[in-house]
Amino acid sequence: MRLVLRTDPQAIGHVTTAVGNAGGAITALDIVESRKDQLVVDLTASAGSTKHADQLTDAVAALDGAEVHKVSDRTFLLHLGGKLEIAPTAPLRTRDDLSMAYTPGVARVCRAIADNPADARRLTIKRNTVAVVTDGSAVLGLGDIGPSAALPVMEGKAVLFKTFADVDAWPVCLDTKDPDEIVRAVELIAPVYGGINLEDIAAPRCFEVEERLRAKLDIPVFHDDQHGTAIVVLAALMNALRVVDKRMADIRVVISGAGAAGVAVVKILQAEGARDIVVCDRKGALHPGREGLDESKTWLASHTNQKWTAGGLRETLAGADVFIGVSGPDVIQPEDLRVMAHDPVVFALANPDPEVNPAGAREYAAVVATGRSDEPNQINNVLAFPGVFRGALDAQARDITEEMKVAAARALAGTVADDELHPEYIIPGVFNAEVAPAVAHAVRNAAEHD
Amino acid sequence: MRLVLRTDPQAIGHVTTAVGNAGGAITALDIVESRKDQLVVDLTASAGSTKHADQLTDAVAALDGAEVHKVSDRTFLLHLGGKLEIAPTAPLRTRDDLSMAYTPGVARVCRAIADNPADARRLTIKRNTVAVVTDGSAVLGLGDIGPSAALPVMEGKAVLFKTFADVDAWPVCLDTKDPDEIVRAVELIAPVYGGINLEDIAAPRCFEVEERLRAKLDIPVFHDDQHGTAIVVLAALMNALRVVDKRMADIRVVISGAGAAGVAVVKILQAEGARDIVVCDRKGALHPGREGLDESKTWLASHTNQKWTAGGLRETLAGADVFIGVSGPDVIQPEDLRVMAHDPVVFALANPDPEVNPAGAREYAAVVATGRSDEPNQINNVLAFPGVFRGALDAQARDITEEMKVAAARALAGTVADDELHPEYIIPGVFNAEVAPAVAHAVRNAAEHD
Repeated sequence: MRLVLRTDPQAIGHVTTAVGNAGGAITALDIVESRKDQLVVDLTASAGSTKHADQLTDAVAALDGAEVHKVSDRTFLLHLGGKLEIAPTAPLRTRDDLSMAYTPGVARVCRAIADNPADARRLTIKRNTVAVVTDGSAVLGLGDIGPSAALPVMEGKAVLFKTFADVDAWPVCLDTKDPDEIVRAVELIAPVYGGINLEDIAAPRCFEVEERLRAKLDIPVFHDDQHGTAIVVLAALMNALRVVDKRMADIRVVISGAGAAGVAVVKILQAEGARDIVVCDRKGALHPGREGLDESKTWLASHTNQKWTAGGLRETLAGADVFIGVSGPDVIQPEDLRVMAHDPVVFALANPDPEVNPAGAREYAAVVATGRSDEPNQINNVLAFPGVFRGALDAQARDITEEMKVAAARALAGTVADDELHPEYIIPGVFNAEVAPAVAHAVRNAAEHD
Repeated sequence: MRLVLRTDPQAIGHVTTAVGNAGGAITALDIVESRKDQLVVDLTASAGSTKHADQLTDAVAALDGAEVHKVSDRTFLLHLGGKLEIAPTAPLRTRDDLSMAYTPGVARVCRAIADNPADARRLTIKRNTVAVVTDGSAVLGLGDIGPSAALPVMEGKAVLFKTFADVDAWPVCLDTKDPDEIVRAVELIAPVYGGINLEDIAAPRCFEVEERLRAKLDIPVFHDDQHGTAIVVLAALMNALRVVDKRMADIRVVISGAGAAGVAVVKILQAEGARDIVVCDRKGALHPGREGLDESKTWLASHTNQKWTAGGLRETLAGADVFIGVSGPDVIQPEDLRVMAHDPVVFALANPDPEVNPAGAREYAAVVATGRSDEPNQINNVLAFPGVFRGALDAQARDITEEMKVAAARALAGTVADDELHPEYIIPGVFNAEVAPAVAHAVRNAAEHD
């Protein structure tokens, strides 16, 4: 907080007392300016939450003789000027450097690419760069906030790509929601990139956009909200089944959520041999008898639930071995899990509030996973997308196939050794340094042997 | 050169002798592989030119028992994987870092921007980032090579932006030449950027694209091939006039070249008080009586040459104080300068071969400048665009106005002190560290006082 205090020998003491009484821990106090009648002071304190931070600010503002001018916090300060910068890969210090990186030397490199377009992947940033493309229509839990407000998330995604797999990723936030315009814009910018990561584009437009771009472009196009989630879910499920000693071909899986992630999870589970899957939307189980289904729900209804199970989510859970939630908060209670088969596996992935309370779920389930960082078994897409693109770029792949995704899942699952496997450790932590290289290696091999 | 040599005790000696006889200086010899019948050798040598490098390669290829496999050079090696990478501005090492740079902390930053869009310029890379946009239709001396082949130049431009003014610049190479598609694509990607630098887009489309984008966007749009050139030309001319003791309002200027650069030079000279300018295209002086002129030539014809001078370039030079060439090679001979006024100033900027031979021109002219790095008085856009965008970004300018461009030119001219000014030193060298800050400062002031 930047405060302006009336000059008074006890002014600062009153402020520090007020903050302390409100439960804040002061970590720094700096006099910024000393004027005749006023002191300008920067006070830094730790708070337990954003609500608590507001309480501390209010406590100070309530004091006579104190004005609160600007309030910031670590997160906002970290974001000043954005989280990315561009760095030359070779220094430019002399005329000689200039004549190679720029004119006249660069002209020969341009001519080489003009003569042989495939050389772009060797001689330019196309070798290592992925575009992170959004229209800002489905950002985190915030929904349709638009391209400018989505940019901090896309910058963060780029930070993750670089940190975990040395992939250069650049934010592309498009000021349109029209699928034709999105597809055309990505086509137009594609020469610079070796891959496209679609992010936070709302269903059902995301399916159409991904499908059309995969058809048009000769570089991989991957909607992480769908396939990143699916890869990590498959890896976690592979390991959970090892824990409960069941096989993919034998299990009944119930999925809550028929959006982007739900469709992709079904496809990858079926690629790995799952044969009995039922998907529920808000109205209950999807089956061919249901009317008024949109395109992806129609696909789901005709590719799953061969037994035409009907009914709500609770009924559908009867006898199921696995529940995967990719929907919203609190759709079931812990007791609802009682009807599942023995040793049920529960992945409740809605963020920030899962489909079922995890602690409660653990009373009924053998293995529980969520998307939360403060719970064991966090299903986090960052375990997949960096390695997937690293492998695809290194293979100079033109597409990310189902085989490459399953290979990624197997490699991710394999980073948990047999003697480490445990109901509360079915998936590695995000900072496990083995993950991205193992995933990249497997994806590259799968690409090169396709 | 990567060579495969028949194993023979004299094999390497024959190679080194051949290279030496052809005038190459060998700087390194590395055995890469030693096979039963063959040696794989990497030989590195210095050559005087690309032609000479080819001669060295031919000399080795001609040897019995030697095969030349791959030939590269420093420039190509520098370009492997491109010349740029993305760097996070803060390290990501712990869960705590992750929770601020990504979920959940980043959501609050997104919400702040959603509530107040102007905050994007504070809290994201929009603060410091410029898009370098091309369609690859007018690249250096290579012409229409397309977006992929143009990418090395755009990467180089980004290296210059960062090196000289700490501006983050990102290549946008568009796979279209349609002005409607170019304008719409830039509009769609604009949320990420604080400015747009148009580059290597052919005339006359470049005029329309720049004009339409300046009207649509609330960030500066600047076609460097036009205005960067114009700014540096004005700065150099201001100093050249100091050398020959003439005033802008009194001089007659003849310009060869009615393309993008020519139009921009006319506008900036007129903004600074020049009153007597004649522009020549291939057919001679532009005047309102000429027929069949395109839009920019029509503008030039009606805004210059009030005396309706007609005739070819040579005749037009009679009595002129200044000749500025922004056209092609060898349009005049040194002797043609004889008809100019006393102490003529000659800027022959066609690259790589100027309108007139510089050494010859110096016999007739008081001050000679070219675009070449191996001549004194190099007119190089890198003296302008980094500082111009630095100043515009810092002022959070919405546009780059004529005032800002003239301010840039004055600041650039001013970096040559009175006691340094000399016929062969009218413009600073590109590595002069004063230039970009001085230009940025002047541009920012001009923007903030508009």
